[in-house]
Amino acid sequence: MSWVTGADGSPYGVTNLPYGVFRHDGQPPRIGVRVADVVFDLAAAEDAGLVLAAGALRRPTLNAFMALGRPQWTSVRQRLVELLTDPAHRPAVEPLLVPLDAVELLLPFEVADYVDFYSSEHHAGNVGQIFRPGQPPLLPNWKHLPIGYHGRAGTVVVSGTPVVRPSGQRATGEGPTVGPSVRLDIEAEVGFVVGVPSALGDRVPTGDFAEHVFGVVLVNDWSARDIQAWEYQPLGPFLGKSFATSVSAWVTPLDALADAFVPAPQQDPPVQDYLRQTPHLGLDLRLAVEWNGERVTEPPFAGMYWTPAQQLAHLTVNGASLRTGDLYASGTVSGPRRGQVGSFLELTWGGAEPVSVGGETRTFLADGDTVTLRATAPGPDGTTIALGEVAGQILPAR
Amino acid sequence: MSWVTGADGSPYGVTNLPYGVFRHDGQPPRIGVRVADVVFDLAAAEDAGLVLAAGALRRPTLNAFMALGRPQWTSVRQRLVELLTDPAHRPAVEPLLVPLDAVELLLPFEVADYVDFYSSEHHAGNVGQIFRPGQPPLLPNWKHLPIGYHGRAGTVVVSGTPVVRPSGQRATGEGPTVGPSVRLDIEAEVGFVVGVPSALGDRVPTGDFAEHVFGVVLVNDWSARDIQAWEYQPLGPFLGKSFATSVSAWVTPLDALADAFVPAPQQDPPVQDYLRQTPHLGLDLRLAVEWNGERVTEPPFAGMYWTPAQQLAHLTVNGASLRTGDLYASGTVSGPRRGQVGSFLELTWGGAEPVSVGGETRTFLADGDTVTLRATAPGPDGTTIALGEVAGQILPAR
Repeated sequence: MSWVTGADGSPYGVTNLPYGVFRHDGQPPRIGVRVADVVFDLAAAEDAGLVLAAGALRRPTLNAFMALGRPQWTSVRQRLVELLTDPAHRPAVEPLLVPLDAVELLLPFEVADYVDFYSSEHHAGNVGQIFRPGQPPLLPNWKHLPIGYHGRAGTVVVSGTPVVRPSGQRATGEGPTVGPSVRLDIEAEVGFVVGVPSALGDRVPTGDFAEHVFGVVLVNDWSARDIQAWEYQPLGPFLGKSFATSVSAWVTPLDALADAFVPAPQQDPPVQDYLRQTPHLGLDLRLAVEWNGERVTEPPFAGMYWTPAQQLAHLTVNGASLRTGDLYASGTVSGPRRGQVGSFLELTWGGAEPVSVGGETRTFLADGDTVTLRATAPGPDGTTIALGEVAGQILPAR
Repeated sequence: MSWVTGADGSPYGVTNLPYGVFRHDGQPPRIGVRVADVVFDLAAAEDAGLVLAAGALRRPTLNAFMALGRPQWTSVRQRLVELLTDPAHRPAVEPLLVPLDAVELLLPFEVADYVDFYSSEHHAGNVGQIFRPGQPPLLPNWKHLPIGYHGRAGTVVVSGTPVVRPSGQRATGEGPTVGPSVRLDIEAEVGFVVGVPSALGDRVPTGDFAEHVFGVVLVNDWSARDIQAWEYQPLGPFLGKSFATSVSAWVTPLDALADAFVPAPQQDPPVQDYLRQTPHLGLDLRLAVEWNGERVTEPPFAGMYWTPAQQLAHLTVNGASLRTGDLYASGTVSGPRRGQVGSFLELTWGGAEPVSVGGETRTFLADGDTVTLRATAPGPDGTTIALGEVAGQILPAR
């Protein structure tokens, strides 16, 4: 029971408590935690000695706090729950609550490296069928390792940031042409944020996932399919992705997702030793994609073939080091049915099957369109918690 | 004429003056500039008021200085030349010179995003012939755009850092196996370091190259060919590259390379408007690859098909923003002859034609091997300047 108005029964109750960075009244950025429809100013709380985190909560990003490690993450969280539930703390804490609608939410952490995986079997299979019809939908390596690549960390933006339609080269019958993308798409993904770094040359085993990963964000990996299709051979996606990647303003700590871990799909063929995870768990996050406010698909994260712990082990098997602020995303989350896909490429089957959105016919994104990704997860005792949404509107090309 | 002993006639004379970051006597990292065999302590120089850069020279990396922009870069350089040539300054400056062999050289800048291009026609053609024999060596897109992809910024290391042999999956006749790479290679490249950022959504035209790019480093993009070959379809290189990328400790400012700009190879078919560069100039850098101290190839940078200004324009044509510290590398520098290639994959033609190195037979790198990349460039009045070398030794897999 929280003394904060509206917290009990809210998907942002005290069992959730996602972290973010906000600006209020023209002051410098501050760390806060969301409860119901207010933001608890943690910089002020640490100033006042209500919570102690070695000064890490008085910084303009979450990075210093995320670097502290799991024991500190857990003890700070326990203290926040105490402050927000014990009425004795109300007089000290209540003045530090700011209405959510009075703040500007900023990118919550400084992104170190950004890696994007490709871990939904349904997504990879759909893409294979659309682009290589008549051939096996999965390439030979797909079930042996979680395919991934590096994206552009500098263009990761916070939810709400408008996305300018990218221009670039695309193929036509008469050779390449340059202009605004005509196949602008989304990818609904889940991102994992690294707090604790690892040393160059060391591996991080699957079992150490929770020691390194601080929390989870929703990710929209905007994709210009026409630019991507022309450029990606042989070195992979580049400008088709690098113009913008949106993340939620709230980072949901792993501790809030303790009830969301579920057995992951069985893997056949058996995976290599370094990818074994015991128990083999994924996360039961239920995503939803809203196109101009209309819910068009509901991708289920629980069915992802490769889990976040396996992705982390793979990312470091070659000795690559982790830094605080590393972000790795799951890849597009698609389930087996058309209403569960995480991209409009799949929803419209390569643009061949337009959909109706708010009475208008769409294949890919039109200028002015807004896409919002949402997600929920099981909380304790049959409750539901929400992840922060990630929204973006398409602006015309410059 | 410099009053510094050995500067005149040195490839590190006052027409060069590369910037680096060093540690000396256990003190915190400091910015310095190299002259002959000494390092001029610029933090101390700015402390003493000998040179003014808004405090940017008193930081532990070059990033703040690189963010100042070309007018400041040029005026600081002019002042350094004055300090190192006018004997009147000798009494004040000489105490701030530290012998090069008494310092530890550190990574000179914090890497924001790392992009790797693929801009040598000879290299791309060789790779095509080795991996796709009997087919056209270049893919259809190659002459229309500078192919590139993002690499791992967090594993960019300074020259001298040992490289642990990476492990990972590779294909065998019976399916994938996991173990240390057996085809560990180098890629001799030239890297360009961004100083002045650009806004999200904006393009940087080819003509603005020198407004954004601060300087040049040598790059060894270590590559595990067996890991890369198995993982790279369809999203490009990942763990085959991400374990380490070595850069020189010295950043050569563009101002030092004024005499090195030369006409770039003619491009046919004509390039798209946004890739036109007038005049169309590349850089006459002459690279050398030393394998265990033996010079095995001499890749010529002047023949690169795509120039650094074109690469920058391409990188931003979709509106991707630049940050201070962005590093983009040329891709492997290979000339038309076997003695001019920038990788051992090419030197040994996919491992099929071993070479003799110091009396031993080699295809790819053995544990204990050292590779050093060097480069020179034309300086003023027929002189030659040197770029900082990049060296690394292979340690056994962990």
